[in-house]
Amino acid sequence: MDDLTLIGRVAPFRDASAYAASSGALNLSQGLPEPLFDNAMNAALARQVRSGWQYADPRGEMILRESIAAHSAGYAPDSEVLVTSGCTEALYLALYAASTQYGSRVAFFEPFYPYYPGMATLLGLEFVALPLSVGASIGPDWAMFERQLRAGVRILLLNTPHNPTGWCMSADDWQHLVALAKNHDFMVIVDEAYRHYQYDTDAPAQYPHQQIPMMVAGSASKLLSMTGVRIGWLCAQATFMERAYAHHLYLSYCQPTPIQAAVAVLLDELTVGRLDSLREHYKHKRDRLAGALMAAGLDIRLPAGGHYIMADYSRQAPSLSPVEFSQHLAMRCGVMPLPATPFYLGQCPTYVRFSFSVAKPIVDQACARLEDF
Amino acid sequence: MDDLTLIGRVAPFRDASAYAASSGALNLSQGLPEPLFDNAMNAALARQVRSGWQYADPRGEMILRESIAAHSAGYAPDSEVLVTSGCTEALYLALYAASTQYGSRVAFFEPFYPYYPGMATLLGLEFVALPLSVGASIGPDWAMFERQLRAGVRILLLNTPHNPTGWCMSADDWQHLVALAKNHDFMVIVDEAYRHYQYDTDAPAQYPHQQIPMMVAGSASKLLSMTGVRIGWLCAQATFMERAYAHHLYLSYCQPTPIQAAVAVLLDELTVGRLDSLREHYKHKRDRLAGALMAAGLDIRLPAGGHYIMADYSRQAPSLSPVEFSQHLAMRCGVMPLPATPFYLGQCPTYVRFSFSVAKPIVDQACARLEDF
Repeated sequence: MDDLTLIGRVAPFRDASAYAASSGALNLSQGLPEPLFDNAMNAALARQVRSGWQYADPRGEMILRESIAAHSAGYAPDSEVLVTSGCTEALYLALYAASTQYGSRVAFFEPFYPYYPGMATLLGLEFVALPLSVGASIGPDWAMFERQLRAGVRILLLNTPHNPTGWCMSADDWQHLVALAKNHDFMVIVDEAYRHYQYDTDAPAQYPHQQIPMMVAGSASKLLSMTGVRIGWLCAQATFMERAYAHHLYLSYCQPTPIQAAVAVLLDELTVGRLDSLREHYKHKRDRLAGALMAAGLDIRLPAGGHYIMADYSRQAPSLSPVEFSQHLAMRCGVMPLPATPFYLGQCPTYVRFSFSVAKPIVDQACARLEDF
Repeated sequence: MDDLTLIGRVAPFRDASAYAASSGALNLSQGLPEPLFDNAMNAALARQVRSGWQYADPRGEMILRESIAAHSAGYAPDSEVLVTSGCTEALYLALYAASTQYGSRVAFFEPFYPYYPGMATLLGLEFVALPLSVGASIGPDWAMFERQLRAGVRILLLNTPHNPTGWCMSADDWQHLVALAKNHDFMVIVDEAYRHYQYDTDAPAQYPHQQIPMMVAGSASKLLSMTGVRIGWLCAQATFMERAYAHHLYLSYCQPTPIQAAVAVLLDELTVGRLDSLREHYKHKRDRLAGALMAAGLDIRLPAGGHYIMADYSRQAPSLSPVEFSQHLAMRCGVMPLPATPFYLGQCPTYVRFSFSVAKPIVDQACARLEDF
């Protein structure tokens, strides 16, 4: 994969937003999350700048590692938590660390977060994309994954809640994985960028990280509606963490000291009650958007989690490509989704992705337009 | 190089500071730069947080790229400047980008910034360390470098002003490199973390980047005395830049939006007059420390640039290792240098490194102790 391909795979995000801006359509192609925590952030930062601007602890300031550990039960802040430059660096480090012990073959489910293939390639890893059904019955085919384990795959990069489908690992799915781990030696990297955004699911509050070798990557980007704050984290048992930490020293090294302290304050303020209310807010937007998409004649599955709804437009415009349909919708309806193209390696089905991680008035306005479409 | 080696190579920095703290010695083992720009930074940041905390342009906010370009004459902010997570990520990306075109063999001068071997290893590159004399006559042996070019090296990672020796590429050195570039196809990566800290040198204000393929990595860490602000940059012609940018998308992605805007304000305030006065401040500290080290019977060469003085202690304690001598000096004299061990691949000579990038009262106090030693 050369540099143009690496850039090209993630360019549709930028292109869709540019098309939305130039066409005047409401931009539902990406996350522009709300409610914003900016006022709380700015107030916390104004206090935390007192700590000065010299090197932070490259593992992360302890006050932030403790806040992260409190949100990721079961990990020790002193040895099992690393602060990274967003979830992106955390995933890169996790893949590196996993590959030093589990080799070069990694699997993830397709559709997939578009950064996975490029990350694997840059780290010299081979990857296989396993189809995740996005039809009536959604979920991994664990028998197919076991065949891949027999064929040499030893790393599973697992995104739950899943971008773009909103699927979430269920208790049953986790049991399948635990059972597989009894007969196969593999590592699971959990990408939990959308953790806490689960609406209708029996997913367990805690992963079975005592039963499966596991690294967990998350970030403040979605949780605090601050995609540009660049505070991510990796949680893992100390033996794996040391490999990630070793590489981290030679990459971003540390995140800005006062930013870490301010994010710690905000994470500590995210109580169960506030998380419930945040989840309720997103669930409401999800339900509103889902109804409007169905009214517009698009086929959807209500996502159990995450920030997006995948919609099949084949009944409306079977001959259009996802890019063409997205632009068609922007021009004719005034709502811009993201073509699902970057989520697939090969031919993309007739899918586009709608984000409900936008301000509620925008969701309402987009829904009104979709209902009239 | 396994993860323990990667961590171990840079651990002496942490160990020396810890020893200084536990022994009560003045810590001259690392940069604790001053004058601080914290007040200006905090004031600028308080205004710039208005821009909010969503994703920044992954190439860097244009306002910051323009400020960087103004300090790095000859580069276009729209296509030849990339904002990174400190100079560390910039160097990692530069090595990656260079290797995609120039292959896997890189050379740097020894002693070297201790992160170079690990970075090369993590990127799957081979490296060769070419001795830089630190005795009476300092500088690269360009004939030796040409032999390496003939043997297949095609990337030179060049740190000027140099850490730890303070050597700076002279006009003559650059002419040697330009002459070599006429007969050999190689790329130079310039690590200019200490740019603007040149005291006695005929080094040209601008590198010959029209005559040699070149990428230039710098940062705000030393220039603005904010090692923890994590704003670095890479400047290069667009064709090389695209490779670095492609990898950057999958690593740190972007730096926090308001931090970028605030650092741009500070860089714009760094006028020629203020840089002159900053340089004069450091030169004064350099001269004060150099005199005291000589008074203490250590052999030094006055560094032409940078923040450090290498000192040979062989006349004082020929049988001690660099670590032993550092601890000896901390205990007996109350001044903690950095053992030069991490700057060498193999056997380290009888050298320790003293930083004059510390507050002036600390330099004065350390000098008084050294003069009495």
